[in-house]
Amino acid sequence: MHKSATVICQQLAPRVGEPEANRNRTIRAIGDAVSDGADLVVLPELATSGFIFRSQQEAEEAAIAASDELFERWSAAAASGPAIVVGGFCERGDDGALYNSAAVVDGSGLLGVYRKLHLWDREKLFFVPGSDQPPIFDTAAGRVGVLICYDLEFPEMSRALALRGAEIIAVPTNWPRLEASDLREPEVTIATAMARVNRVHICCCDRTGTERGQEWIAGTSIIDARGRVLATQRGEGPARGELDLELARDKRLGDHADALADRRPELYGALADRIPQGAPGD
Amino acid sequence: MHKSATVICQQLAPRVGEPEANRNRTIRAIGDAVSDGADLVVLPELATSGFIFRSQQEAEEAAIAASDELFERWSAAAASGPAIVVGGFCERGDDGALYNSAAVVDGSGLLGVYRKLHLWDREKLFFVPGSDQPPIFDTAAGRVGVLICYDLEFPEMSRALALRGAEIIAVPTNWPRLEASDLREPEVTIATAMARVNRVHICCCDRTGTERGQEWIAGTSIIDARGRVLATQRGEGPARGELDLELARDKRLGDHADALADRRPELYGALADRIPQGAPGD
Repeated sequence: MHKSATVICQQLAPRVGEPEANRNRTIRAIGDAVSDGADLVVLPELATSGFIFRSQQEAEEAAIAASDELFERWSAAAASGPAIVVGGFCERGDDGALYNSAAVVDGSGLLGVYRKLHLWDREKLFFVPGSDQPPIFDTAAGRVGVLICYDLEFPEMSRALALRGAEIIAVPTNWPRLEASDLREPEVTIATAMARVNRVHICCCDRTGTERGQEWIAGTSIIDARGRVLATQRGEGPARGELDLELARDKRLGDHADALADRRPELYGALADRIPQGAPGD
Repeated sequence: MHKSATVICQQLAPRVGEPEANRNRTIRAIGDAVSDGADLVVLPELATSGFIFRSQQEAEEAAIAASDELFERWSAAAASGPAIVVGGFCERGDDGALYNSAAVVDGSGLLGVYRKLHLWDREKLFFVPGSDQPPIFDTAAGRVGVLICYDLEFPEMSRALALRGAEIIAVPTNWPRLEASDLREPEVTIATAMARVNRVHICCCDRTGTERGQEWIAGTSIIDARGRVLATQRGEGPARGELDLELARDKRLGDHADALADRRPELYGALADRIPQGAPGD
């Protein structure tokens, strides 16, 4: 079993309406990260297309199939090392629907595609949500699970990946700046908490660059399984972190405490669905 | 329906082996908070007993029943206002077992007792974990749910209370300082994230004072449903916050986004139990 992993998140600035430039940027970013020794390269959500679509037609035009030759180029860029690549793209499914997806690629080719389960706000106007569980891959960077952006705000998701043995969760994101805030970025706070309670490493690769007036928090963060933010990136470029995989395999919090074994799943089942408000003390 | 609530968390310094002083301190703290206009008063975990027991015998001697006259005194201290009080105590159950519990009291008397479901580390040596769901009470401070300390590190718990309609979660805590850290207190980060993802107010009342060499983070925090820390307290004394209950009732995050309605519970059920590690991409 691998003991550690070098993760590079490549914070990019995709531009809606410039697919060729976006695609070339992703290929270059993968090549650079692999040259720099990455075991895992994470790219932003919708890195090929940009985010702020004005119309369904615009989203359709930006969509590519999972069979697109782009992913062969990602694979070729990754092939000089052991790296696995997780990057977001605007997917046209075989069913003709659009999905907000992440491709997972290594030097051998496309390993899988994850379709975002929780669509954020106006994404619902353009995309169909996925219906399959997020995948986990055994790689040189350990067991890598995949989520996309808003998925992280559903604790059920990172919990599930940790329970299934993920050691690292790679999270392509596009985090729009939504509110003037004296908070530390809430998105990073959420990712940090999910890493900490699950003792799993979480690598969020955000985007930057204003797009049609929308700013982004540029919140790329490599967070270890203790909830320490090891690396960030505020502009375009890499954030790099060395992750101790043993740390994510050891869920013990003390001599008599364990982040996962201390769960009471027999009591959680009844809570999975929303319960109407009832009497006091119900 | 009430629109806002004044919450006062009374950070105390209980001392193991001094039950009478501890009890008097809780009564005084309730009286002070009610005089100051509290709708909800939160006291620390195990406020009556202290935390660092050396032996089962010591824990037994510190335990009191839910029928103890202390709670009549809490009720009397609360009776001059509409306040509900949530405070931790070392409970001796009718079955003779010890529980790490929270009593919920108002001017009319004892409303209920919650027994901590997730015992932290050495607590397992002295206490039996509860087996009942955390309660929710309709009060002048809105719908108030109760958790205790380590429960918060299980996202299933705050999620369940939010799904059941809790607007405020009152959390008696004893947060030991476990690690030299350049982190913001991880416990507060977790509470903040749980508030934010559930759009529920979370009021953590911690303890302070060194006990048998154990330091505490003194992390009392009143956190609103947007994940903003409205008030803290570093020493002995109150943290006070005004909570907008409408904020906790409105789960909308945008025109097309909703923190609870966007869940995919049909996909979460299969994830409730730990799944053995399987093949890549399983």
